[in-house]
Amino acid sequence: MKLSTITNAKQVFDLVRDDLAAVEREFARQSDSDIRVVTEIAEYLLAGGGKRIRPLLLLLAARALNFQGESRIRMGAVVEMLHTATLVHDDIIDTADTRRGRPSANTTWGNSKCVLAGDWLYMQSFQIALDERNFHLLDLLISLTQQMVEGELLQIQKLGHLINEQEYLDLIDRKTASLFRVSMQLGAALAGSDENVERLFGEYGHNLGMAFQVIDDVLDLTAEESVLGKPAASDLREGKATLAVIHALERGTGEEREAIRTVLADRSFVRVPHKDILTILRRYGSLEYAMDMARAYAEAARQSVRELPDSDTKRALMWVPGFVIDRDR
Amino acid sequence: MKLSTITNAKQVFDLVRDDLAAVEREFARQSDSDIRVVTEIAEYLLAGGGKRIRPLLLLLAARALNFQGESRIRMGAVVEMLHTATLVHDDIIDTADTRRGRPSANTTWGNSKCVLAGDWLYMQSFQIALDERNFHLLDLLISLTQQMVEGELLQIQKLGHLINEQEYLDLIDRKTASLFRVSMQLGAALAGSDENVERLFGEYGHNLGMAFQVIDDVLDLTAEESVLGKPAASDLREGKATLAVIHALERGTGEEREAIRTVLADRSFVRVPHKDILTILRRYGSLEYAMDMARAYAEAARQSVRELPDSDTKRALMWVPGFVIDRDR
Repeated sequence: MKLSTITNAKQVFDLVRDDLAAVEREFARQSDSDIRVVTEIAEYLLAGGGKRIRPLLLLLAARALNFQGESRIRMGAVVEMLHTATLVHDDIIDTADTRRGRPSANTTWGNSKCVLAGDWLYMQSFQIALDERNFHLLDLLISLTQQMVEGELLQIQKLGHLINEQEYLDLIDRKTASLFRVSMQLGAALAGSDENVERLFGEYGHNLGMAFQVIDDVLDLTAEESVLGKPAASDLREGKATLAVIHALERGTGEEREAIRTVLADRSFVRVPHKDILTILRRYGSLEYAMDMARAYAEAARQSVRELPDSDTKRALMWVPGFVIDRDR
Repeated sequence: MKLSTITNAKQVFDLVRDDLAAVEREFARQSDSDIRVVTEIAEYLLAGGGKRIRPLLLLLAARALNFQGESRIRMGAVVEMLHTATLVHDDIIDTADTRRGRPSANTTWGNSKCVLAGDWLYMQSFQIALDERNFHLLDLLISLTQQMVEGELLQIQKLGHLINEQEYLDLIDRKTASLFRVSMQLGAALAGSDENVERLFGEYGHNLGMAFQVIDDVLDLTAEESVLGKPAASDLREGKATLAVIHALERGTGEEREAIRTVLADRSFVRVPHKDILTILRRYGSLEYAMDMARAYAEAARQSVRELPDSDTKRALMWVPGFVIDRDR
C-alpha cells in the first residue's frame, strides 16, 4: 500500500474501527454508576457524539508501535472521559446553552449536578488509570489535568481583555493541545517505547492539537450555526479574542480596533454586527493568517513521525493533520 | 502520665503542634499557584480556619505507630486540601452565602472560578500524593474522593424528599466519615502498619466521623447563627432532613409531620417557624436520640483503639471522641 492510498477519513477510522468500538463500550461500562444522574449525564454526553479524536490518537500511537494490550482500550476510554469531564465543567463556566447542537448538560441538569458529575468523571478516569499500576501514566494524566484546569482559569482571567498572540498560543496549548499530546504519549508509554519516541509522539500530538484548535477558532468566526452546532462567533460573544482577531487588532485602524474591542467588551453584536468584524478580518488577511499557522502546525506534526517505518498506521498519522485542517466543523 | 492527664484540647494539639504548623505551611506552599485566583481562593479558605481535624487524625495515627517521616506532613496537607476542594464545590451546589461566618468562596469569586479552583485543589492533592510513589495511598484517596462526590450527588437527589435513618447514615458516611476514616488509614499506611491495624484505625476514623457529623447536624438545628458562623437550621432551609428530624417524622402526629414536611418543601420557615420545629423535636426526644447515637459512635471509636499500648498519643485518640461530642460549634 502506498502513502497515497490513505485518502479519506473512513480508511483511517477503519484501521482502528474495532478498537474505537471497544473504547465506546468501555466508556459506557465505566460510566455506569450507581448514582443515576452520573450515568444519565455520561450517556447524554456520550450520545452527543464527539469526534473521538483523542482515543483515535492513543490507538494509532499504540498501533504504530505494535502494542495490542487491552490497556489501550481502557486508556482510550480514560482520555475521552477526561475530555468529557472538562466539557461538563467548562459548560458551567461559559454558561453555554448549547454544545454540539444540543442543550448543554448544565442547561438540562443544573450547575450543582454538573459540578459533581464532572468531578465523578475525573475520579473515575483516574481510578481506571490507577488500576494499570503504572506511575508514568498517572504522572502524565495528573499534570495534564492540572494544566488544562489552569488554562481555563487563565482564560477566565483574560475574558474581555486583549491578549497577544503568545498568550493565545499558551491558552490553546493548555486547553487543547496538552490532551492531544498526552493521548499520543500514553499510546507510546503503553507500548513501552523509549523516551525519545514518546517525546516525538508527544510533539505530534501537541502540534496536531494546536492546528486543531486554531482551526476550531477560525470556524467559530466563519461557519454557520447550523454547521457548527452552536451559535456562530460564540468566542466573541464570550469575550474571547482568538488568533485571527488578535492579528487584526494588531494591524487595524483605530476605528477598526475600537469595533473589535466593543464586541469583546459587550460580548454581543448589538453595537457592531458580526459581518463588520468579518470584513475587518478579511481586510487584513487575518483568517488566512490563522489558517497558515494551523497549516504550519499540521506540517510540524507530520515531521514528528516521518522517521517511523512505513505502515498503514504511519500513513494514517501522516493523513490526520490534513484532515484536521480541511474540516468544516 | 495517666489517662486522666489528657483533659483538654490544648494538651492534645500540643502533641502534634509542630506537625500541624508544618502541615499548614505545606498547604500554603502547595497552593501557591502561578494562577493568581487559585492562590487567592486557597489562602482565603486556609485563613478561614477550619478545625484541621483531618490532618490531626492522620498525624495522631502516624504518631501512634511511631512514624516520623516527612510524608506525614505532606499527606496531612493532602487530606486538608481534599477537604477544601469538596467545600469549594459544595458551596456551588448549596449556593451557600456564608461558610464559617464569612462570605463563601463562590459569593466572592463566582461559580466559574470556584469550579476550576476546586478542580485545581483536587489535582494538586493527587499530585502531592502521587509523588509519594505508593499505590496504596492513591487507592485510598481516589476511591474516597469518588465516594464523597457520590454522597453529594445522592444528597442532591434526596433534597426535599423524606429519607429514612439508613439513608441518612449512608449519606453522612460518604460525606464526612469516609475522609475521617481515610485520614486514619493514611497515617497507618505511611507507618507501614499491617492490614489489621489499618482496619482498626479506619474504624476509629469512621466512627469518629459519624459522631462528628451527627453532632454537626444537631448543632445546625439548635445553635445560634452567631455561634455557628452560618444561618441557624440551614439544613432545613436547604431541604435536608437530618437524624433528629427523621426521628420526629417517624413518630409525630399527622399535623406535626406535615409541619416538618412543609419546611423541607418550602426550604424556609415562612409558613412554619423554626421554634415550632424545635418544639416537635423536643417532644419526641429526637435531639437526645441523635445525641445518644453520636455518643455510641464516639464509644465505638474509642473501642477501636483500646488495644494500643498506653502512650500520650493513645490517650489523645481516646480523648478526641468526647471532645467531638461536647463541642458547641
